[in-house]
Order: sequence, then structure tokens, then C-alpha cells
Amino acid sequence: MSRPEAPVPLAIGPTVPAPTLLEKAVVEGGATLSDLDQARGLIWAGGPGEFPDKLPESLEWVQLPAAGVEEWFTAGIFTRHPNIRFTSAAGAFAASVAEHTLMLLLAGVRYLPEHLRAVSWRQQDFFPHVGTLRGKTVTIIGAGGIGRALIPMLVPLGAHIIAVNRSGRRVTGPGIPETVETISTDQLGKVWSRTDHVVIAAPATPATEHLVGAEELARLKPSSWVVNVARGSLVDTDALVAALASGAIAGAGLDVTDPEPLPDGHPLWHLPNAIVTPHDSNPPQLRLAAFADHVAANVARFVAGRDLLAPIDTERGY
Amino acid sequence: MSRPEAPVPLAIGPTVPAPTLLEKAVVEGGATLSDLDQARGLIWAGGPGEFPDKLPESLEWVQLPAAGVEEWFTAGIFTRHPNIRFTSAAGAFAASVAEHTLMLLLAGVRYLPEHLRAVSWRQQDFFPHVGTLRGKTVTIIGAGGIGRALIPMLVPLGAHIIAVNRSGRRVTGPGIPETVETISTDQLGKVWSRTDHVVIAAPATPATEHLVGAEELARLKPSSWVVNVARGSLVDTDALVAALASGAIAGAGLDVTDPEPLPDGHPLWHLPNAIVTPHDSNPPQLRLAAFADHVAANVARFVAGRDLLAPIDTERGY
Repeated sequence: MSRPEAPVPLAIGPTVPAPTLLEKAVVEGGATLSDLDQARGLIWAGGPGEFPDKLPESLEWVQLPAAGVEEWFTAGIFTRHPNIRFTSAAGAFAASVAEHTLMLLLAGVRYLPEHLRAVSWRQQDFFPHVGTLRGKTVTIIGAGGIGRALIPMLVPLGAHIIAVNRSGRRVTGPGIPETVETISTDQLGKVWSRTDHVVIAAPATPATEHLVGAEELARLKPSSWVVNVARGSLVDTDALVAALASGAIAGAGLDVTDPEPLPDGHPLWHLPNAIVTPHDSNPPQLRLAAFADHVAANVARFVAGRDLLAPIDTERGY
Repeated sequence: MSRPEAPVPLAIGPTVPAPTLLEKAVVEGGATLSDLDQARGLIWAGGPGEFPDKLPESLEWVQLPAAGVEEWFTAGIFTRHPNIRFTSAAGAFAASVAEHTLMLLLAGVRYLPEHLRAVSWRQQDFFPHVGTLRGKTVTIIGAGGIGRALIPMLVPLGAHIIAVNRSGRRVTGPGIPETVETISTDQLGKVWSRTDHVVIAAPATPATEHLVGAEELARLKPSSWVVNVARGSLVDTDALVAALASGAIAGAGLDVTDPEPLPDGHPLWHLPNAIVTPHDSNPPQLRLAAFADHVAANVARFVAGRDLLAPIDTERGY
């Protein structure tokens, strides 16, 4: 990696509980730590409320710690600093959610919930229910950060992947082989019959509400798992409960629900083939390490004068 | 792929419930199906008891369906047919066991057992317990078929891998990057303190009995998971139960136990941080598909005149 002769001073703020990870990321990226008043860049680990009113003339770039920056937009941070390039942490937390998704899918396919209820060996009872992702087709609705992080995790398991995005333009990225099919959302109806398992990782919009409802669930298989890590509203909960209760599908792994939080006594808490995790696929204590990885990557880009990851369009606010 | 002009006739026997998968594998490998009396090779899907006493002069190669071939050795099949090359299915079933291993490890690290007991949202209670494999060190004891199949599944999750084999010679293979460390079994003591999670996938021998006992478990972390998919005897069960009960380690995922079957009432059935699957990581209904993949690969090698996978040393019987 070529580095310019002059050091690139970057500051970190505000005072964070474990700054060492971010300090290491700055150094790993090839910059040097400095006070804010001499810095060319600022790695910000706090909220918009604590953000400095005045930034030094030397400052060119601010890295924010959140993937969604509505709050910063509302707080007027971007308009107050029109000459600064802001980047978000969009994509930084996708790997943790993708790992959680893989866990939910594998636990379902391998029949883990029933295993955990067992208090007796019963190997012959279990044998027919232990499935595999090898040779199976996983349709991933949404090919943003989570979908693109999940694909390289599924490929070595021998799954065939159908990625679904709005445009239908081929999904590419590190670890995404050419054997991955990409289709557009409006072609989704055509792949249900070829689909073994469905992962939902698309944004919640009016267009994606109840994207998976009674009709779609009816076209899946009794061996199919549905995993939702996006937003609860993408699935019709009543239709899902009915499909789980009737055995129309094998099960559901849900990190998000509708309603959310899922109220006590809801059937999804009690159906034996529903796995519910309370929107904890990206828990707070994993976020700092993920943010630090993102910072290291962006610092290296800044030092090298390359395009930064997750630039914020400060006029549109995302 | 270059193929000789003459077709390569291969037979399949005995009558199997779903021969089409094997027929497809033979054709996919570039050979043609034939009766046994004209065949150059025989794909055998049955046991040694049904194996033909007489084989035609034309026959050069027999593919057996098992990974361990002690029974065929004992039945005298190899000595009865001294001019035939026999191959086993060693390695064919490793992918299913590796997938199961990944499932157990992820389910543990992401705290799935407690999630499955929950009947209430409690997100704040769960947050601190949801871990990740990203940036963690997984020590895989045994770098045979299962270990080598597991490594490419762990790499995209961002885990650092220490592979342990007898020789300490670098583990190589498809999807195994150079960042994987390899150490010899006698160096194992030196890596416990760097290890976050342990996977046991080594053969059961007198040398590996209780390879993981009280001392090793004490050197792991309160966040460590131990996954055993090899043989129960490699772990000291009493020491494991004590470590699980005290919280010295986070949990254990066990597809094999000692004793096996695990008797009713055993503490491993009731400890909340033990996941037991009754040696079902390679269930019968997945074996035919895995065997067919192995057959296709070996047929292609036979047709091309290349070395066959999993040749049996018919004098030693393995």
C-alpha cells in the first residue's frame, strides 16, 4: 500500500468508553491521531446532540457511527457544515445480521428447536428431519449490505442463491460468484416454486409490505424455512402463523416481528417451529468492533485519496 | 473436459431405492451405464453381504458406499478380488457433518438455546449474550475431511482458524486460505489461551482419548463453546458437565457423547447450555446425495485415467 509522505492527522470524538479500538483503526488505516483543531478527519462515536458546533478549517471529513443518519439530518448537522464530507456506517453492521441470519436458517434446516426440547436419544426419530442447505435454493429478498454479506456465507455450504433486488441488475461483490442468480422484485413470483428457503433482508417500504403473505407461503414447501431479519411488516404475520401451524412450511426464524415487540402470549412464542430472537442480531456490544473495522477501511481510503465508503448525500439526508 | 473416444461402461448395483441419483452421477462423470458383465467399473450402493461373489473379467474398479470399510475387509471382499481397485466413500459425508458443526457453533455463540426458551421479548436481557464468530479464534482439532470442509465455511464469517493435525504440516485445500494456522497435536497446549472456541473433529484413538479434559476446559473462556462431532471419548464428559454447570465455559454442542447413546436423565440433557444432537449430523437421507456427488467426481477421474479419490489399501483394509 502506498502512503503519502506527510502524515494524515485524524481526531476521535467524543470521549468513548473503549476508544482504543477506534485508535487502532485509525492507525491501521494509515493515519495518525491528532487533536480536533489540527485534524483533517474526525471519527465521531457519539450522537448528534454532542456534535461540535464549530469544526476547524483543516477538517475535510467526518465519519459518523450510525447506519441510518435521519437524526443527524434532523439536527441540522449537515447544513451547518456544508464543506465537510460526511460518511455513515451503512454496511458496517451487515455482517453481524448476516451471521445471525445464517444461524437461524441452519438451526431451522437442521431441526435444532426440537433437538433442544429432547431429553432422550431418539436418533431414529430425528434422522428424517435433519436437512441440509447443500443443493438447496435460497432466495434472498434484498441485496443490500445484509444480503451481500450473507451470500459468501451460504456459498461454501453448497446452496444455490437467488438474489432479489429492485433493478434485477446482477449482484456483485467480494465472495459473490457468478453462479448467483439475480432477479428483480417484480419477477419474484416466478421463483417461488424453485425456492427451498426464503431470507427477507429488504427495506420496509409501502411496496414491500406483506411481500410474503398467504399466497407466497402456499407456494413454498413443507420443508421450507422463512427467515426475516429486515422488518416485521414485510411478512403477513397472521398468514405466517397459519402456515406454521398447518405445516405448510417447516418453520420461521424471525429477528423482527409485526407487531414489535412481540406481545406476551402471541402464537409465535409458542409454535414449536418458530424461532424468535428479539431484534438482537446486531447487539450494542458488537457494534463498536464492527464500526472500528469500517473506520479502518475508510481511513485507508481517505489516506489514499480514494472514494469513501457510505458517503452521505447531505442534501437528501441518507 | 477431454474424453476418450470409446465409451466407459459402468454398472450400478445392487437394486437401490433411488438409483436415479447414482445413474445421473455416472453419466455426469462422463461414463455410460451398463450391465455388470460388460462393465469396467461398478458403483456399489449395498452392503458386503449382497456383494457379488464373481466379478467379470472386464471389471477394473469398484466404488463402495461407506467411508469406513472394516466390514468389507472382515467379509474378505478385498482378498477375493485381488485385481480390482476399490475406493471408499471417505470424505463424501464430511460436508454434512461440517454444516452441522457450523450450526452448533453459531447457535451457541448467538445464544439460541435461551432464545428458544423465551416466551417474552426481553431484548435488553439478550443483547449482552449475543456473540459473533467475527474476529474470534476457532481451534479445529482434526484436519481430516470434516475439518477441511468446515474451514471454508468459517472463513467468510471472519473467524481466525487454528487447525490441529498430527504432523503440523500446513492444511491446504479448496477454500482454505493461507491465514489458517496449522499446528501439530503436541503443540495444542500452547494455543488454548488464544482459543475462543474449540471444534473436535479428530479420530478416536488411544492418543486422543480425553484430549479435552478438566485442564483444557479450565484454560478456555467463559464465552467459549466446545463442539464435538467426532467421538464422545475425545472429551472427558464429567469434566465437561462440571465446566458447563460452573459457567467456566459458555456451552457445548455435542453430536457425539460418552456414553453413547446418552442415557435418559444424564445431566447433558438438562444443562441449559448443552446442545445435544443424537449423532445425526450425517442422517441416512442425506447420504445418497452426498455419495452421488462423490461418485460423479470419481467417475470423472476414472474416465480421465486420473487417480481416484479415497482408494482403499486392500491389504491394510482402510
